[in-house]
Amino acid sequence: MDPAQEAHNREAFRQAVVNTLERRLFYIPSFKIYRGVAGLYDYGPPGCAVKSNVLAFWRQHFVLEENMLEVDCPCVTPEVVLKASGHVDKFTDLMVKDEKTGTCYRADHLLKDFCKDKLEKDPNLPAEKAAEFRHVLAVLDDLSSEELGAKIKEYGITAPDTKNPLSAPYPFNLMFQTSIGPSGVSPGYMRPETAQGIFVNFKDLYYYNGNKLPFGAAQIGQAFRNEISPRQGLLRVREFTLAEIEHFVDPEDKSHPKFPDVAKLEFLMFPREDQVAGRSARRIHLGEAVAQGIVNNETLGYFIGRVYLFLTHLGIDKDRLRFRQHLANEMAHYAADCWDAEIECSYGWIECVGIADRSAYDLRAHTDKSGVPLVAHEKFPEPREVEKLIIVPVKKELGLAFKGNQKMVVEALEAMGEKEAMEMKATLESKGEAAFHVCTLDRVVTINKNMVSISKEMKKEHQRVFTPSVIEPSFGIGRIIYCLYEHSFNTRPSRDGDEQMNFFSFPPLVAPIKCTVFPLVQNQQYEEVARQIARSLTAYGISYKIDITGTSIGKRYARTDELGVPFAITVDSTSSVTIRERDSKQQIRVNVDEVASVIKEVTDGQSTWGDVLWRYPTHSS
Amino acid sequence: MDPAQEAHNREAFRQAVVNTLERRLFYIPSFKIYRGVAGLYDYGPPGCAVKSNVLAFWRQHFVLEENMLEVDCPCVTPEVVLKASGHVDKFTDLMVKDEKTGTCYRADHLLKDFCKDKLEKDPNLPAEKAAEFRHVLAVLDDLSSEELGAKIKEYGITAPDTKNPLSAPYPFNLMFQTSIGPSGVSPGYMRPETAQGIFVNFKDLYYYNGNKLPFGAAQIGQAFRNEISPRQGLLRVREFTLAEIEHFVDPEDKSHPKFPDVAKLEFLMFPREDQVAGRSARRIHLGEAVAQGIVNNETLGYFIGRVYLFLTHLGIDKDRLRFRQHLANEMAHYAADCWDAEIECSYGWIECVGIADRSAYDLRAHTDKSGVPLVAHEKFPEPREVEKLIIVPVKKELGLAFKGNQKMVVEALEAMGEKEAMEMKATLESKGEAAFHVCTLDRVVTINKNMVSISKEMKKEHQRVFTPSVIEPSFGIGRIIYCLYEHSFNTRPSRDGDEQMNFFSFPPLVAPIKCTVFPLVQNQQYEEVARQIARSLTAYGISYKIDITGTSIGKRYARTDELGVPFAITVDSTSSVTIRERDSKQQIRVNVDEVASVIKEVTDGQSTWGDVLWRYPTHSS
Repeated sequence: MDPAQEAHNREAFRQAVVNTLERRLFYIPSFKIYRGVAGLYDYGPPGCAVKSNVLAFWRQHFVLEENMLEVDCPCVTPEVVLKASGHVDKFTDLMVKDEKTGTCYRADHLLKDFCKDKLEKDPNLPAEKAAEFRHVLAVLDDLSSEELGAKIKEYGITAPDTKNPLSAPYPFNLMFQTSIGPSGVSPGYMRPETAQGIFVNFKDLYYYNGNKLPFGAAQIGQAFRNEISPRQGLLRVREFTLAEIEHFVDPEDKSHPKFPDVAKLEFLMFPREDQVAGRSARRIHLGEAVAQGIVNNETLGYFIGRVYLFLTHLGIDKDRLRFRQHLANEMAHYAADCWDAEIECSYGWIECVGIADRSAYDLRAHTDKSGVPLVAHEKFPEPREVEKLIIVPVKKELGLAFKGNQKMVVEALEAMGEKEAMEMKATLESKGEAAFHVCTLDRVVTINKNMVSISKEMKKEHQRVFTPSVIEPSFGIGRIIYCLYEHSFNTRPSRDGDEQMNFFSFPPLVAPIKCTVFPLVQNQQYEEVARQIARSLTAYGISYKIDITGTSIGKRYARTDELGVPFAITVDSTSSVTIRERDSKQQIRVNVDEVASVIKEVTDGQSTWGDVLWRYPTHSS
Repeated sequence: MDPAQEAHNREAFRQAVVNTLERRLFYIPSFKIYRGVAGLYDYGPPGCAVKSNVLAFWRQHFVLEENMLEVDCPCVTPEVVLKASGHVDKFTDLMVKDEKTGTCYRADHLLKDFCKDKLEKDPNLPAEKAAEFRHVLAVLDDLSSEELGAKIKEYGITAPDTKNPLSAPYPFNLMFQTSIGPSGVSPGYMRPETAQGIFVNFKDLYYYNGNKLPFGAAQIGQAFRNEISPRQGLLRVREFTLAEIEHFVDPEDKSHPKFPDVAKLEFLMFPREDQVAGRSARRIHLGEAVAQGIVNNETLGYFIGRVYLFLTHLGIDKDRLRFRQHLANEMAHYAADCWDAEIECSYGWIECVGIADRSAYDLRAHTDKSGVPLVAHEKFPEPREVEKLIIVPVKKELGLAFKGNQKMVVEALEAMGEKEAMEMKATLESKGEAAFHVCTLDRVVTINKNMVSISKEMKKEHQRVFTPSVIEPSFGIGRIIYCLYEHSFNTRPSRDGDEQMNFFSFPPLVAPIKCTVFPLVQNQQYEEVARQIARSLTAYGISYKIDITGTSIGKRYARTDELGVPFAITVDSTSSVTIRERDSKQQIRVNVDEVASVIKEVTDGQSTWGDVLWRYPTHSS
């Protein structure tokens, strides 16, 4: 298919999904009666039920299975915490302003749109220009503020709505800012992620876990991002639910006892090398990916496998799910490795889960800022002899030589690594002096033999003190749910073939309502049976909907299919009823007093529809 | 007991509870390593589990049982919504400032502390003065800004920390303010309640419900309140979880089909009259309370009953739970009736759930502000003949007579009620003119016969259009949980009688962890059995903790009792194990392959401990 046609189809498909979702209140633009707010959405009744099913399964699959420590921290966060994490300084996007109206735009979006537009719509574009635009799109995320500004100027890009000139790009912090308490002197922010709440509690959680590593801590909660101009509907929003895991491990031992449980899985992976070489994602055996060092370590590999199981169990199509490794330039300098679970939908491949080995970065940052050591201890079975480097600057001599700069020189000497120190020791012993670069002074000074003593001593140590590494799987719940909607959306002809009917083929685990109850015709006896069944369903904790309208049974099936309800109970007698399965439209006949327990079996995962199908007589309508 | 001793005991009890809660990480002052933020708390692992159990039961008890429509709306809310609801103008506390340091205090708190202090600590207080202070405490909530300021001045109250003079009281809005988007021109707030998200969606929800009343909508989520100076630990916080229900009913029919299910309940109620008369709360039969008009209507009564069942099922002591009716001066002018579920704890009687009949106020406010009619329709089975009042002002005549005031007179004429209009009609017919008070002009004008035509006409109407009333049960989840902690906290002597041991007697439904698994001694065989049991527990979705430390079994029981874990499995052989119940300390012996299903039975409510006790041999340790 040609790309334009493909784009058109994708757009049409998305419109069909989104129309259904809005019409059936899976979601609602927030504050719609006030014309809404860009980037804010409500989950309506079925959407809210899907979300709470997804979160309940997340808790079962991760928190319960791995015995994680779940915490629940506030959204309002004081500035100091987000200073330490780097968000106050670095959680920004580059913005340009319409110089006349003051309307704001994301600088990279404007440049991206311009290049895409030229490539797609200008048939006379010289090959050389096309190559240039393609190059800009490829390096877009790496452009500095200056480079972005220069390109915008060079291409003569103006404000999309008014064609007015644009300001130079400048950073806009994406956190919602507020003030804590009445004084106005305690700035705070709505948290941009839930992770920081876990990091600042590391000490207590480590203690709660019996001072043992490894352990995982988890948090589900709202996070906030004051987007400059939200796009992509439900995918880029200003408030969203995150589910995050911080798994703390000994940096010297990132093995995982349960890795063999997932090692045999095979799925689409997209290692860094394949991306750079222009190859496609390919099916890789997870055990081999770790063995070959494609994935940095077993624990990271274990979580990649668990995320794969989580997503596919929810109903994500495994052929439109891939794990893409971050390129060197995407990854934070401290990260050891990072993989995104990307799901393909009408917007392209969307990052829905990030799984990163963040090394010791976060705990170190909070240790530095708070002065509270966030470290773990490994007690040795018996004390160990350890060779220790001892550097003792002779302050008096250094003071005489360097006056006001004494402190900087002292600190630089103390900060020397083993190799550097031993080289200096050798030089001092052979030559009596050594050249030494003091980076805080930005110059080379001369150190004399009598200014410092360098030695190695054997010491007995009883324990090892270290900052744990953290492996962080972070789930964008709203994005996963949106992709699930697209992957579950189907269309089939109505019985008479006149109409195309939509339905969501959610697995029972995810379905917002587990079954509907229909009295076949409006009569008191059938309605009483329906109510009796409803009471048993409630007792089992199964969500249901009764539809007693006089509409034709076919229309009622269509209505409930469109909500993704997997089972429909039709009351057509007072002794036995039929159960219809949504996707196959097969029906079985079950006694009234058994029906709730059958529905329970097939919705809580004890049995499949296939299992119960042969136990009961089939029914043809 | 004398009041001072009683206060001391309460304080000591609270300290014991709070120490245990903090030590076992039920909660953690947020951002502790940065010295915390007043009024912000984290739920640590057991607290977070208790909270999610309470919320899951809330969903089962309310949303599922009543087929409510659950929604999930953002916390970030644009100003227009909270303008309409009245929060921007009225959600304030009166604040005074230390005139030198700028430190802020709640004006009523200072006055309250002053009066209490005098009453408790001044033995020479004249009876007359004591009566005055008691009166001030009684009317504290009704004092205006000016009255509060005058009292503070009269009593010479100064800033508690510095003794500096204080400013006059002024209102401080309790919402956290922020700005939506990058332009700085769209003010927003963190929602102070979840209810508004439901009201603004009324139209869609009514449609979703098949355009039928009554129906309930529900929302669980974070709400925010930027307290001036948070007090009372976990009870008054700056961010908290609310669970709110908005039940929409026809104002002309507030009956409830399920009211008979709760009518027979009897519990402590505290009607307005009893409070005013200085009587105590008393046990009242709910059915009678509604029949006698103590409770305004059946639907309100139904929810009072359901709230009673919810709280006592969680483990709230029914003798320390009462339903207190709002006094006339506590209730908003539009409210038809309002009851608070109050729970007694060491801080006194604490409002944990509010159950209010808010009439049509909220929907009308949003209808007015948004211009979108939030109304319901009742179609008549057949058209009805309705007598309609028709008032037609003759604008030309009115213009000649009243010039620039014409519009006000026209509007006043059109706004006349039936009685007033018919009187005017009679007067005009008999005397040719009538005196008419125009309130917007604040004067009486003379209306002539030719200025207005008043008549009654019969009209056919096909439906009734009306604004539904709303009954709102609103749950402060954190407060309920804190009271539950106090009501579940117990102390008993250790086996050797040397120590007092704490334990939480949570019902299994609420318990943060359902069972612990202890290998009796450290050996590989027992640990393998423990792991096997753990796997079955996970498969059943039961949370557990394995404790393989070599500590004595008594200490391990104590540790798990203190977390409120109801059952402990001790592995003392490879074929059968013991299950111990926390409160009774009774033990039974169960086969290894049965143990998980027994635990499931007694934790999911299928059976009680009493039920299984006779099925298995008891074990004495």
